[in-house]
Amino acid sequence: MFSILDILGTVAFAVSGTLAAIQKRLDLFGILTISFVTAIGGGTLRDVMIGNTPVLWMQDLSYFYIVLVSTVLAIIFRKRLSILRTSIFLFDTIGLGLFTLVGLEKGVAADLDPLICISLGTISACFGGVLRDILCNEIPVIFQKEIYATACIFGGFIFFLLKYLNLNDDLIFLSTAGSIITIRLLAVIKKWSLPTITL
Amino acid sequence: MFSILDILGTVAFAVSGTLAAIQKRLDLFGILTISFVTAIGGGTLRDVMIGNTPVLWMQDLSYFYIVLVSTVLAIIFRKRLSILRTSIFLFDTIGLGLFTLVGLEKGVAADLDPLICISLGTISACFGGVLRDILCNEIPVIFQKEIYATACIFGGFIFFLLKYLNLNDDLIFLSTAGSIITIRLLAVIKKWSLPTITL
Amino acid sequence: MFSILDILGTVAFAVSGTLAAIQKRLDLFGILTISFVTAIGGGTLRDVMIGNTPVLWMQDLSYFYIVLVSTVLAIIFRKRLSILRTSIFLFDTIGLGLFTLVGLEKGVAADLDPLICISLGTISACFGGVLRDILCNEIPVIFQKEIYATACIFGGFIFFLLKYLNLNDDLIFLSTAGSIITIRLLAVIKKWSLPTITL
Repeated sequence: MFSILDILGTVAFAVSGTLAAIQKRLDLFGILTISFVTAIGGGTLRDVMIGNTPVLWMQDLSYFYIVLVSTVLAIIFRKRLSILRTSIFLFDTIGLGLFTLVGLEKGVAADLDPLICISLGTISACFGGVLRDILCNEIPVIFQKEIYATACIFGGFIFFLLKYLNLNDDLIFLSTAGSIITIRLLAVIKKWSLPTITL
Repeated sequence: MFSILDILGTVAFAVSGTLAAIQKRLDLFGILTISFVTAIGGGTLRDVMIGNTPVLWMQDLSYFYIVLVSTVLAIIFRKRLSILRTSIFLFDTIGLGLFTLVGLEKGVAADLDPLICISLGTISACFGGVLRDILCNEIPVIFQKEIYATACIFGGFIFFLLKYLNLNDDLIFLSTAGSIITIRLLAVIKKWSLPTITL
Repeated sequence: MFSILDILGTVAFAVSGTLAAIQKRLDLFGILTISFVTAIGGGTLRDVMIGNTPVLWMQDLSYFYIVLVSTVLAIIFRKRLSILRTSIFLFDTIGLGLFTLVGLEKGVAADLDPLICISLGTISACFGGVLRDILCNEIPVIFQKEIYATACIFGGFIFFLLKYLNLNDDLIFLSTAGSIITIRLLAVIKKWSLPTITL
C-alpha cells in the first residue's frame, strides 16, 4: 500500500514538473530534467544533507522509470490534462503527505531531533517544487500561495505527538499522511492561505 | 565569546532574509524559509561539500531556535527596523567575519589546502545570501555590490599568514574576524567597490 | 592525454562562465564565482550526490588554479574572444565529452546502475552551465537550445554498449568522448535541435 501511494506521489510530481516545463516552452531534455527535479529533488536534498549517499534514486531505479514513463505520458496526453486536473491535484496531495512521511522516517532513522525531522519531512515534500520553480526562473510558488508546506509541518507535529503516545506505527503513518492530505484539501477547497506581511 | 558573536551573526542573517522575503510579499512560510536559508545556507553548502553530514544545524538545535525567534521578532518589529538598520548592518558584518572563521576552521579540520579553506570560509559566510537571492529570483547582490566576499577572502589570507607565523590561536581568530569586519566597514563607509568589467 | 583534455574542458567552461558574468555586468568577485561554478559545479553536484566528499576540486588544487588563470586571461582578452569564439566552442565541446566520461567512470566506480551512471555523466557535463544560468537569473540555456545534454546521454549509451561488448578501455573512452563531440559538432553545424512541445 505504501509503495503504491509512493508511486502515485512521484507520478504526480513528475506530471506537475512536465506541465511547468511545457509552459516555459523548454525542449524535450528540459522537460525531462524539470520533471526529474520536481519528483526527486526534495528527496535528493534531504539525503545529501543527512549524508545518505548515494542518494535514494541512484540506489532504487524504480524512481527513474516512474518519472520517465510519467513524463512521456504527460507529454502525450498534455491536452487532456486539464480534464485530469482534479486527479493530478489529488495525486500531488497524496505525494505531499507521503513524501513528508518518508522524510520524517529518514530523520528518525538518523536519530535527529523531532524539529529537524519535521524540517526534513517538509523539505522532502516541498523542495522538489522549489527547485522546479528556480529552474523555471520563478519565485517558488509555495512561498506565495495557499497552505502547502504548512500542512507538512502540521503533519510532522501529529507524527511526533502520536509517537510520544506510543501508538501503533501503522496508525501513526495513516494519521500523519491523512492529516496532511486533509489540511491541504481543505485549504484548497476553502481557499485558506497564510498571511503575507506588509511593510 | 565566540558563541555570542556566532548567535549575533545568525540573528543578523536571519533578519536580512526576513526583510528580503517581506519585500517580495511572500507568505509566512516563505518568509521563514528564506530566513532559514539565509542564516544556515552557507554553512549547509560547506558541510555538504566537505562531507560533514548530517549538516551542522541538524545536529545543533540552537541555530533552529535562534533563526525562528529572530524571524518572529523581525516580523513584529519590521516597521522599526529602519531605525535599527545600523545595528543590523553591524550584526551582518560581525556574522560575515565569524562565519568565515568557522568555515576556515572546518577546512583546516578536514585537512584541506589553505586556498580551499579560504574558499570554504567565503562560501560559509556569503552563500546564504546567494541562496536567498536565488530564491527571491534576483541576481545575487554580492556579485554586484560593494566589497563583501572580498573581505572574507582577504581575512582568509590573514588567517593563514598568522598561522604560518605560529601565533596564538586566539590572536589568529581575533585578527581574522577583525580584519574582515574592518574591511567591510571601511568599504561601506568609504563606498569602495570592486571594478566591473565592461565588454 | 586525458589530463590535457580535462584541462582544456575546464578552461572552456571557465571562459564561458566569465563571459556570461561580464555580460551581466557583475563585479570581479561575481565573475570569479560564476567562472568557478560553471567549471566545477557539475562535478561538485555529482560528487555530493554520490557521497564522494570532500568534493574533487577540494582535493585536487589544479582545478582551482586552472579556473583562476583562465578567468584572468579571459577578462584580459575579452575583446578578442569573439575571434576566439570557434576555439572556445571547440574547448567547450571537448569539455562536454570529457566531463561526461569522468561522470560515467565515477558512477561505475560507485557500482551504480548504467542508467544512473549516464545521468551522472550528463549532470557532470551539463549542470555547471545550469548553475551558471541560475546564478545569472536566466532559464538554463541547455533546456532550450540545440542538442547538448542529449549528446551526453547518447555517449553514455555508447559507453555501456562497448563495455558490454568487453572492448578495450581506451577504445571505450575514445569512442564515448568521440561520439559526444561528434554529435555536438554536427548539431551546431547542421542546426539540429530537440522539439519543443506546445500546449
